[in-house]
Amino acid sequence: MFRHIVLLAWTADATAEQRAEVVAQLSKLPGAIPEIRRYEIGEDAGLNAGNHSLGVVADFDDVDGYLVYRDHPVHLAVIEEYIKPILAGRAAVQHEL
Amino acid sequence: MFRHIVLLAWTADATAEQRAEVVAQLSKLPGAIPEIRRYEIGEDAGLNAGNHSLGVVADFDDVDGYLVYRDHPVHLAVIEEYIKPILAGRAAVQHEL
Repeated sequence: MFRHIVLLAWTADATAEQRAEVVAQLSKLPGAIPEIRRYEIGEDAGLNAGNHSLGVVADFDDVDGYLVYRDHPVHLAVIEEYIKPILAGRAAVQHEL
Repeated sequence: MFRHIVLLAWTADATAEQRAEVVAQLSKLPGAIPEIRRYEIGEDAGLNAGNHSLGVVADFDDVDGYLVYRDHPVHLAVIEEYIKPILAGRAAVQHEL
């Protein structure tokens, strides 16, 4: 299996609606991208200062499955339309599982 | 369930031995901290520029289980002894699963 982990930090002026819409749009991706084997999203619980805002853990059969996801037009559209407008920071790792 | 995700970036001068030792030490934590329900570690595959170096996804029954882990002396010792000396960046999120 192959895993993609991304943590996103929102801008201070990001609204609750904008933040919720990102979760809603990302949640549609497993339906649009069959290479996704597991897809878990969560908003930070606020336990520790300095955390990012949103975490996504996505699993695929292999690297090729991840690359389909990474470059998929539906995924890229969510990034452009919903994520970039409120993005303050991003950290990611992809690794064999 | 409750999830902790952390992504760590190493300094440029971190040696392969130091990087491997972090993985080895973190891999011992499930044996020392029974609150850990799931613990997956992976070194970045190098597919995308700007990524962090190491990803950890840890699951617990609940927030209290995560807090035991976060503040556990064995965990804190790994951070002090093996992670901080080569740490260039860190991003984290904790969320309900």
